[in-house]
Amino acid sequence: MKKIYKSFIQKAHELTELKSILDLLKWDLETTLPKRGVNVRAGQIATLSVMYHKKITSPNLQELLDQIADEDLDLWLKSSVKQLRRERDRAVCIPEGLVRELAKTTSLAYEAWVQARKKSSFPLFSPWLDKVLALKRKEAECFQSFSHPYEALLDEYEPEMKVSSLDRLFQSVKPRLRSLLDRTRASKHRPEHSILKGCFPISQQKTLGRLILTKMGFDWKSGHLDTSPHPFCVGISPMDVRITTRYVKENFSSSFFAVMHEGGHALYEQGLDTQYYGLPACEATSLGVHESQSRLWENQVARSRPFWEYWLPKIKKHFPGSLEKTSLDSFLKAINHVKPSYIRVEADEVTYGLHVILRYELEKLMIEGNLQVKDLEETWNSKMKEYLGIVPERSSEGVLQDTHWSQGLIGYFPTYLLGNLYAAQIFSQVDNDLPSLDQHLRNGHFKPLREWLREKIHRHGKTKSPDELIKNISGTSLDSDYMLNYLEKKFGELYTLDKPTISY
Amino acid sequence: MKKIYKSFIQKAHELTELKSILDLLKWDLETTLPKRGVNVRAGQIATLSVMYHKKITSPNLQELLDQIADEDLDLWLKSSVKQLRRERDRAVCIPEGLVRELAKTTSLAYEAWVQARKKSSFPLFSPWLDKVLALKRKEAECFQSFSHPYEALLDEYEPEMKVSSLDRLFQSVKPRLRSLLDRTRASKHRPEHSILKGCFPISQQKTLGRLILTKMGFDWKSGHLDTSPHPFCVGISPMDVRITTRYVKENFSSSFFAVMHEGGHALYEQGLDTQYYGLPACEATSLGVHESQSRLWENQVARSRPFWEYWLPKIKKHFPGSLEKTSLDSFLKAINHVKPSYIRVEADEVTYGLHVILRYELEKLMIEGNLQVKDLEETWNSKMKEYLGIVPERSSEGVLQDTHWSQGLIGYFPTYLLGNLYAAQIFSQVDNDLPSLDQHLRNGHFKPLREWLREKIHRHGKTKSPDELIKNISGTSLDSDYMLNYLEKKFGELYTLDKPTISY
Repeated sequence: MKKIYKSFIQKAHELTELKSILDLLKWDLETTLPKRGVNVRAGQIATLSVMYHKKITSPNLQELLDQIADEDLDLWLKSSVKQLRRERDRAVCIPEGLVRELAKTTSLAYEAWVQARKKSSFPLFSPWLDKVLALKRKEAECFQSFSHPYEALLDEYEPEMKVSSLDRLFQSVKPRLRSLLDRTRASKHRPEHSILKGCFPISQQKTLGRLILTKMGFDWKSGHLDTSPHPFCVGISPMDVRITTRYVKENFSSSFFAVMHEGGHALYEQGLDTQYYGLPACEATSLGVHESQSRLWENQVARSRPFWEYWLPKIKKHFPGSLEKTSLDSFLKAINHVKPSYIRVEADEVTYGLHVILRYELEKLMIEGNLQVKDLEETWNSKMKEYLGIVPERSSEGVLQDTHWSQGLIGYFPTYLLGNLYAAQIFSQVDNDLPSLDQHLRNGHFKPLREWLREKIHRHGKTKSPDELIKNISGTSLDSDYMLNYLEKKFGELYTLDKPTISY
Repeated sequence: MKKIYKSFIQKAHELTELKSILDLLKWDLETTLPKRGVNVRAGQIATLSVMYHKKITSPNLQELLDQIADEDLDLWLKSSVKQLRRERDRAVCIPEGLVRELAKTTSLAYEAWVQARKKSSFPLFSPWLDKVLALKRKEAECFQSFSHPYEALLDEYEPEMKVSSLDRLFQSVKPRLRSLLDRTRASKHRPEHSILKGCFPISQQKTLGRLILTKMGFDWKSGHLDTSPHPFCVGISPMDVRITTRYVKENFSSSFFAVMHEGGHALYEQGLDTQYYGLPACEATSLGVHESQSRLWENQVARSRPFWEYWLPKIKKHFPGSLEKTSLDSFLKAINHVKPSYIRVEADEVTYGLHVILRYELEKLMIEGNLQVKDLEETWNSKMKEYLGIVPERSSEGVLQDTHWSQGLIGYFPTYLLGNLYAAQIFSQVDNDLPSLDQHLRNGHFKPLREWLREKIHRHGKTKSPDELIKNISGTSLDSDYMLNYLEKKFGELYTLDKPTISY
């Protein structure tokens, strides 16, 4: 192998390793770290982030990138050079002091948010949010090449996505979701959600979680399932993918859907082509596409009739005494009930998008300087009233519910709704390509679906941009009609809005 | 504060943070890391070790150390400068390539050892041990200032300890331990060890472990208890001290003693003076002294009569149905039974030292080049025969039992026996200073003991060398008579070697 290739690969590996250590530090922060260890953790993260920043902005790397650009590279190396150049170009815009301050402040702000949320007190958190926002606005100002400061932040999570595109997509989504919500609210066919309640011992829920993950194809030799207050997935490497969930004794479905959601993320990480591990192209192409994988398993699969034809009898056996008299029809209605609620992560498929749009609008206003932290909670609540018709009584159920802003993840929320849009568009093609999918699900077989996703999405990593990927799959760019049509059909049937029977 | 102080403190903090990240990477490797994540972990550890090495050997640091040496420093800064200079002087001797190779090889050798031990196959591990040894010999050769290549390695774990001192200490220990062992073997008063067997549900053992740690004064806001195949303690910082244990359903004492042992280590780490966190002096003074803390709690405390006067009734209640008819006398005999056995970590107080001496002699021979890996198992077995009168039938119970060599920890074993020596010498002073200690233990009160240890040992960190510390405590340097007298008295009584009744 040419010397320059070797140098590039070694440099890329080092950077990947440092990033993956940061991933581990954050995983540990949310799962294991003792309370008093938080300050040291903040220091560790800051120090390592600065070291990473130093490495990626070093003149040596620039030189290497310039030299290798003249070579005739294969797809993976070419995409990796492009990716590293992109990351480098972003990094050189941000001064080292800001990197350190951001890393340190967000670790501490995270802890402040945990405490504020526990006490449901926004004033405990707002000084920290002020600090984080000031730093993020400074960060956005470092970039010249974006048409909107928010876009500079968004670009980190969803490469090449424009604020104008987001605005257009979300503007098309908002009225149709609100209309669908109004129509389900007006329907007389209201599902009984309380039938999901029962007694589900946590040890049994853990066994079930492991079972469904195994069935999905989760590789236990390359992954781990743990407990944390907020379910998440982190791919430290394709050979070390960790997901977490939390358990509610009275309701198995809370953890069950979380496990399938995070399991969808995990399959993407484990499905990357491990022979290219260490190259920057061997990562998920964007957070939006990542989210499409979790939502597809959580919603398109695990809230469908064929899925539960297989699993409901299993669940009844697994938890004797609970759900005994529940019919498949009423169960399906219960897990698909549409109801405005305070908490995004517990929202149904219809209201979920409105939660995301609310956050998107608020954080854009804050980054623009058109909304102050002191007015945030009031604006949050009035938008909740407008979009969902409800106002949270406690800050912990409102403005304090999500961890993202405490961690400086501004520009991240939109990727959740993009994920839903991608998921619907992808699944529509799955339906075409796998005509017997329903039958497979009825038999508890996920392999054909998993292999399709691996082949069409997972293995490509960043060698395809999100737009290339979705065009390859469905022939068109991202189009919100797929999701809206899917939701209108599904909930039209469930709530007998158009047709008299449930037949999806 | 003077600028140079600030620079020094900042530099020292950075180095401490990097080291503590390495600690976390290793903790995770042994508790959580999925099997296929091992290669990436090896890379992470190697990359970070090299970055650490680069930082500690940088000319900037040398300059800073030279400049600050002229200042009039307080005890903590002075000790920290001394400590950092010591570490730097070691590091500059070792080339970066060797650091990388050592870090990478030992992570992989660890995994090879895990597999080899599982299959009880020394040939699966021996090529890796060859590699590790070659690197460690290379490392030892890097240093000029030691009288023996083994001393260069020993010095990392037990600063300023000489091979000649070790030889002298161990030569005095070996015959008296062997004689004591022979005499207990010949005694007719043989304890019945099987009475410890019963049914001890693991969840109940976990509760008990948390209870005893809480009583010992373990700070749960600054620590964590997890499960791993080999119990250990790691102080990521004094605010993040993690211990592990493993559970055997049939025998609660296995985990109980492990928890108290690791708890002893943890109290040392948590007892460091946190206001100096980040300074190199804010660390345990040596591994030998560290081990004294674990052994003191495990043996001098938890294998004593006053301790069990309080705890045996508690244990009986905690595990109803087990140990019901066990008297305090027979219980004490059982937990103190002396019997040659294969596994060091399960050895009694008398044979333990012989296990350590065996390893010390073997690794010294290997480092000298006087013993080849291919002959290691045979020599191991013949020494076992000579010292303990038994020969392991399986490699997993012999040469493969310990993880140390796989991790490149050569020169580490002696610190275990030093720990026992320190523990006996320290406890003899505790007995003088706390005349009501037995009464406290009978009432389940550990506070007076813990505070004594904190005041005399823990809080000082590296501001006192091991020798200064033990001289301050007992007026003399380390002296093996303390341990030998303690053991001869205790087991003389237990086995009625001299006196007819148990009265210790």
